[in-house]
Amino acid sequence: MSEHRVVVVGGGFAGLQVVNSLEGAPVKITLVDRRNHHLFQPLLYQVATTVLATSEIAWPIRRLYRNRADVTTLLDEVLGVDRMARTVQLKSGEVLPFDTLVLATGARHAYFGRDDWESIAPGLKTLEDATTLRRRLLLAFERAELTNRTEEQDALLTFVIIGAGPTGVEMAGMIAELAYRVLPREFRKIDTARARVLLVEAGPRVLSAFSEDLSAYAKRALEKLGVEVLTGNPVTAITDDGVTIGDRFVPARTVMWAAGVQASPAAKWLQTPADRAGRAIVGPDLAIADDPDIFVLGDTALVMQDDKPVPGIAPAAKQQGEYVGKLLRARLSGKALPGPFHYRHQGNLATIGRRAAVIDFGRFKLTGWLAWWIWGLAHIYFLIGTRSRIAVAWSWMWTHMSGLHSARLITQKETLKDES
Amino acid sequence: MSEHRVVVVGGGFAGLQVVNSLEGAPVKITLVDRRNHHLFQPLLYQVATTVLATSEIAWPIRRLYRNRADVTTLLDEVLGVDRMARTVQLKSGEVLPFDTLVLATGARHAYFGRDDWESIAPGLKTLEDATTLRRRLLLAFERAELTNRTEEQDALLTFVIIGAGPTGVEMAGMIAELAYRVLPREFRKIDTARARVLLVEAGPRVLSAFSEDLSAYAKRALEKLGVEVLTGNPVTAITDDGVTIGDRFVPARTVMWAAGVQASPAAKWLQTPADRAGRAIVGPDLAIADDPDIFVLGDTALVMQDDKPVPGIAPAAKQQGEYVGKLLRARLSGKALPGPFHYRHQGNLATIGRRAAVIDFGRFKLTGWLAWWIWGLAHIYFLIGTRSRIAVAWSWMWTHMSGLHSARLITQKETLKDES
Repeated sequence: MSEHRVVVVGGGFAGLQVVNSLEGAPVKITLVDRRNHHLFQPLLYQVATTVLATSEIAWPIRRLYRNRADVTTLLDEVLGVDRMARTVQLKSGEVLPFDTLVLATGARHAYFGRDDWESIAPGLKTLEDATTLRRRLLLAFERAELTNRTEEQDALLTFVIIGAGPTGVEMAGMIAELAYRVLPREFRKIDTARARVLLVEAGPRVLSAFSEDLSAYAKRALEKLGVEVLTGNPVTAITDDGVTIGDRFVPARTVMWAAGVQASPAAKWLQTPADRAGRAIVGPDLAIADDPDIFVLGDTALVMQDDKPVPGIAPAAKQQGEYVGKLLRARLSGKALPGPFHYRHQGNLATIGRRAAVIDFGRFKLTGWLAWWIWGLAHIYFLIGTRSRIAVAWSWMWTHMSGLHSARLITQKETLKDES
Repeated sequence: MSEHRVVVVGGGFAGLQVVNSLEGAPVKITLVDRRNHHLFQPLLYQVATTVLATSEIAWPIRRLYRNRADVTTLLDEVLGVDRMARTVQLKSGEVLPFDTLVLATGARHAYFGRDDWESIAPGLKTLEDATTLRRRLLLAFERAELTNRTEEQDALLTFVIIGAGPTGVEMAGMIAELAYRVLPREFRKIDTARARVLLVEAGPRVLSAFSEDLSAYAKRALEKLGVEVLTGNPVTAITDDGVTIGDRFVPARTVMWAAGVQASPAAKWLQTPADRAGRAIVGPDLAIADDPDIFVLGDTALVMQDDKPVPGIAPAAKQQGEYVGKLLRARLSGKALPGPFHYRHQGNLATIGRRAAVIDFGRFKLTGWLAWWIWGLAHIYFLIGTRSRIAVAWSWMWTHMSGLHSARLITQKETLKDES
């Protein structure tokens, strides 16, 4: 009998957890990702805001499985899935046969039909997104120092973050730290403390996944850092000149999008039903409706529990990956199958600047510096490998003690040209 | 009396040393660079070969001078110099008046009239050069793993480095380490140890600035690592398909240029005589012939000493910067002027892989692992700031102990497309 072939597409939290859970199982795994690295997305905002280096939160996927002879890693892109033939078509021309298929290809930003906003207000999902945002952020200050026109300076020193979920809140807090604490002594003409950081949210409160009192605390903490929090304010237009919030136009040269995501096209490849955000609808075993050997996980899947979707966060993706690993092991060994997938919500965390955080563990809530430390330790714990843990801990310690940010590099393009 | 205005163009080793040497002097300094960071070029090859992260060897220039109220840093590009009006024209439109002008704008690669080679065989001067080379290097292995055609695999696994000065030798050694020691366990289809690393040199020996016995040692050490060293072999053609060495065509997909440099156009801005490599010819006070207030330093200048040009290395640039600082201080205080610039050659260093180096201090010569440690300590000492020193020391320690490279990221572009 030939070995059971598992194809896993996507080296994010869900995909890696499937591969990890199948260690020692009688399977042959092919792991496909179009990037060569796994990315620790929860800390990506710290790359964008110059605290961490890119290599501190990303690991070559094939290095993670160098000792797993059962795992073949391919840097390739999926073009489609042939459910009849049980194969995956790759861009390189390769056709991968599978017995079990796991799609965990994540999500990208969604602009609610306004795709023209994307080039002006980029989001934060990949390392390139982070270095692009970092470049725009730092160039705004540099350009403000070079111009003599006050209006242009004001627009350059206005930073608008759209969407007040954890990413938006964390970005706004760190940009405020940069403008008000790190940079003021370095510029001679402009006063970087004059910068405006606007956090714009269409809904009634920031961090809507958290309890109301934590939302209120987060808003106050942001305002204390100098962030202007505009809740209940939908953005109606974004142009190169600025952002229209409700019916008020704010001139701004740096706009960031943290307001919505769209799942990757996995549901289309499978021609299986999806929700409005493109997430494939899966059953309680995380497989699609009519095909128990095809699983969709993480941000690509809509998993319902207690009439609510399981949130698109790393712990949920990991739990799903682990469940599928367990299910496959049980199937292959003929043992009793596990019951339906059950998501255990461990809590919500978000940082505000570099000294405060909010933690919502349901009954247990925490704010302030102790929350920041718990958040920090938890994230260091979840990084992969001793090296990254030490490197990140060291970067944070340094940033804390010195008040300096160490990864303040403008790279990728000619520094004074526009990206276009 | 208004303060003496010094304009320094270029935030490399020479430019920074001028600014550092002028601390406390009665001057007003404007430091212009088109990049926002100072780059520690001697370690750039380690970014290209995945050992160090970009932010470990680069520092925002304006951060370095945050406590120097006399220094204004501008991220801008020089368009020209008006010697009659005593001004520098910047791309932003700004016009900077100067009493003293220091041009230290470095060099770029030179392809001896074959500019069409540049896109195929990029050089190594900027952080982007390093991440571009890193991407090409890593993608070559990834593509070899994806293809089934043996010829294509062979071409993908052939790495050609042109020019066997320190950069070429160091790149060749690290690529060999990657291919033969770091990567073999990570690929399932290809054997990365089958890769060929060719170091091609038109001259008769590698490291021609070193003594002959050290050259011979370096060649043997490279060959022991698996590098094919081809001295006395001029490259006659480079195409997308490969490199022609003498009259032999070698199919290769990854080619790197370390063979020659061309000075930045400072001499043209000044309309002052230059040598064939574009270096402005300066007198023993490092000023141009007919203008004692305009200095050209570092890789942009031809400084003759004992009928030989002072080499284009970091210590020479620093000594020149220090000399100009001293000269200016003496002029401004009316004290005795220092004698002509005298370059003190401290020695040549180069690493071969991650365990050996050659050191040529003239009478004192050293090879092997002890040379590597001296090289390493010297470079850590010359990094800027405690943070970078600890970060780099930690990265090296980790690489040494684990044999793993930590910054193995493919970034900047879609991973499977070509750069074009």
